[in-house]
Amino acid sequence: MATPPVGDVLAEATEFLHLFHDERRLPGVAARIAQVREEVALTGTYRHTREELGYGAKVAWRQSARCVGRVRWAGLRVRDRRDVTTVAGIARELAQHLAVADNSGRIQSVMTVFAPDRPRVGPRARIWNDQLIRYCGHRTSGGSVLGDPAQVAMTDAALRLGWSPPPVPGRFDLLPWVIETVYEDPTLIQVPRDLVREVALAHPAYPWFEELRLRWHALPVISNMRLRLGGVDYSCAPFNGHYLGDEIGTRNMGDRDRYDQLLPVARGLGLDTSREDTLWREHAVLVLNQAVLHSFRLAGVRVSDPHTESELFMKFCAQEERAGRPVHGDWSWLNGSVGWAALHPVHHRYYDTRVPNPNLWQADRAYGPAGVVELTLLERHDAARRRED
Amino acid sequence: MATPPVGDVLAEATEFLHLFHDERRLPGVAARIAQVREEVALTGTYRHTREELGYGAKVAWRQSARCVGRVRWAGLRVRDRRDVTTVAGIARELAQHLAVADNSGRIQSVMTVFAPDRPRVGPRARIWNDQLIRYCGHRTSGGSVLGDPAQVAMTDAALRLGWSPPPVPGRFDLLPWVIETVYEDPTLIQVPRDLVREVALAHPAYPWFEELRLRWHALPVISNMRLRLGGVDYSCAPFNGHYLGDEIGTRNMGDRDRYDQLLPVARGLGLDTSREDTLWREHAVLVLNQAVLHSFRLAGVRVSDPHTESELFMKFCAQEERAGRPVHGDWSWLNGSVGWAALHPVHHRYYDTRVPNPNLWQADRAYGPAGVVELTLLERHDAARRRED
Repeated sequence: MATPPVGDVLAEATEFLHLFHDERRLPGVAARIAQVREEVALTGTYRHTREELGYGAKVAWRQSARCVGRVRWAGLRVRDRRDVTTVAGIARELAQHLAVADNSGRIQSVMTVFAPDRPRVGPRARIWNDQLIRYCGHRTSGGSVLGDPAQVAMTDAALRLGWSPPPVPGRFDLLPWVIETVYEDPTLIQVPRDLVREVALAHPAYPWFEELRLRWHALPVISNMRLRLGGVDYSCAPFNGHYLGDEIGTRNMGDRDRYDQLLPVARGLGLDTSREDTLWREHAVLVLNQAVLHSFRLAGVRVSDPHTESELFMKFCAQEERAGRPVHGDWSWLNGSVGWAALHPVHHRYYDTRVPNPNLWQADRAYGPAGVVELTLLERHDAARRRED
Repeated sequence: MATPPVGDVLAEATEFLHLFHDERRLPGVAARIAQVREEVALTGTYRHTREELGYGAKVAWRQSARCVGRVRWAGLRVRDRRDVTTVAGIARELAQHLAVADNSGRIQSVMTVFAPDRPRVGPRARIWNDQLIRYCGHRTSGGSVLGDPAQVAMTDAALRLGWSPPPVPGRFDLLPWVIETVYEDPTLIQVPRDLVREVALAHPAYPWFEELRLRWHALPVISNMRLRLGGVDYSCAPFNGHYLGDEIGTRNMGDRDRYDQLLPVARGLGLDTSREDTLWREHAVLVLNQAVLHSFRLAGVRVSDPHTESELFMKFCAQEERAGRPVHGDWSWLNGSVGWAALHPVHHRYYDTRVPNPNLWQADRAYGPAGVVELTLLERHDAARRRED
């Protein structure tokens, strides 16, 4: 279940409020804890102040073991939208999130926090998409996938809800949002096309590269993680940073179970792909990454190269250690995002592997492998209400 | 200290003997354990049979969390030289090890096991070199290093013992061996030149690459690890596999604190090194790795490319899991050896991080940063004898 017993709420709340008052050098922690204790005793939960929410969300990012971009944690822009609880309202705010984060290509890190989960019931609202901007994975009659194979189940889920795919399906069709609340069924929302900035990929040295007709969107907005803060869960709290080149060039474009572009690029380069020890895969992935960094830069869209990002992460580690805090980290994720790992300082140290709160956690998925939803929030809410009656 | 209390010896011995008898399907484990118990009670240790030593050494490899080449564990050739205890005898056997392992370029995995450590005293013999074949790091008058910066301390240590460096120092001068025993002071031994196979590095597409005059030796023989087997330590037990291309091309040639060749290669390629996001480092390291794989192959010297090796490691994982054994692994080391990590299946799973015995452990270093030895084995042995008198 998403919500822990009340005892945990108080313990986590106390720990978080101490952290908040300590780090911000604010007085009155005892009084605030007493207030929260009373509120929890009455309602089973409590309401964060605007300041607690804003700072706590930043700390959750700071403690996200898998993220290599955490040096920017204090600059996170937190949009407090806890009062927005309808599908229509949430959709409007998601559109607004895209606009604020895009910032004419100079991507800003933004989190939009909707209402917290209800104790003993769970999320009040849920976005089915794992990111706000994703490309469809269309099943073809031949059994292969057109587009992003990682999105086949989500594409199926949208189709089951009555979504009409484009008449001529392509490799880069935007998936609609699916949003549900405890009062409204899962609802399809068309993503506002004009708010989705995309970059066509070209390579500075190879004109043929453009003929591959590859592109990617500028904004990675993660929408399937749960912010846990002082014993309170916010299951609907999408957030974004900006892209690291490898995420697109190596993973999205290169992975065999994603766009699988190593062979087409190697053919363009005229490489000998008959044996692995020519390192044609490394060569192709290098060229893909160069294309991503070059194209984003030319388009004026913020993107990080692995060297700069690795250096910045070392700066973050030094900052944290100076502040007397352990550097939480998952070595495999940190290094998975920076290409030829051994080239970077992030490769050459270990990290504290504990996972503290505040933090961001994987949320329960709304649908199964074939896009089938098991229980909507509305059904879950009705079941909880019947139990209470 | 290197040797644990007697209680540990018996517990580890029992565990190992069960493993040995179980995996080899041999009868008589109870009788053998009784025999060992008696021997330990009398002498504080016990002597492995030839078969126990041979199989145990293979299991130690199989359980080495950092090694990506473990699919070959059962093929390890174990040379039982426990009766060789003098510096001269050890030097002869090391030369023989080089010859057997080299196998005309078709490198074989070999371990030569010398006498076990003495309870309460420590190693009977010690090789100061971390590998049997290593290139000097000469300090120059300008404060820089000519050769391998990782070997400056060992080069200093050899100089302190009276070693004469070549009249014209170069980047690839062989370090002498330093061997000591509990009866003999640290002794310099010239490595038999004709047993050291080397490969000059060339690139299939770039003739200028040869002008960098880079080379590397064919055999990585690790000589500073301690084999721990059933409660007995073998501090003098050098072993080798064959090279994985990245070990030479990425680490030895590319690392800033090793041969630091990325910039010279990038200059040869005419790359724009004024900004990191051209990925010139990745391009240079790709070309270095291609040169290593190409040159070794052309010279008929066994070497592994990261793709083949990663696939073989997955085969090893499957074998181990079929045999009902956990796959012990240190993710960071396993992936550190295979270039652009996310390209390989070894990247996409987790491993059991426990470190069981039998295993191979880092041995105590014989000398400090400036090549100064603190206590020779002979001095340590004398001190122990005086304590016993």
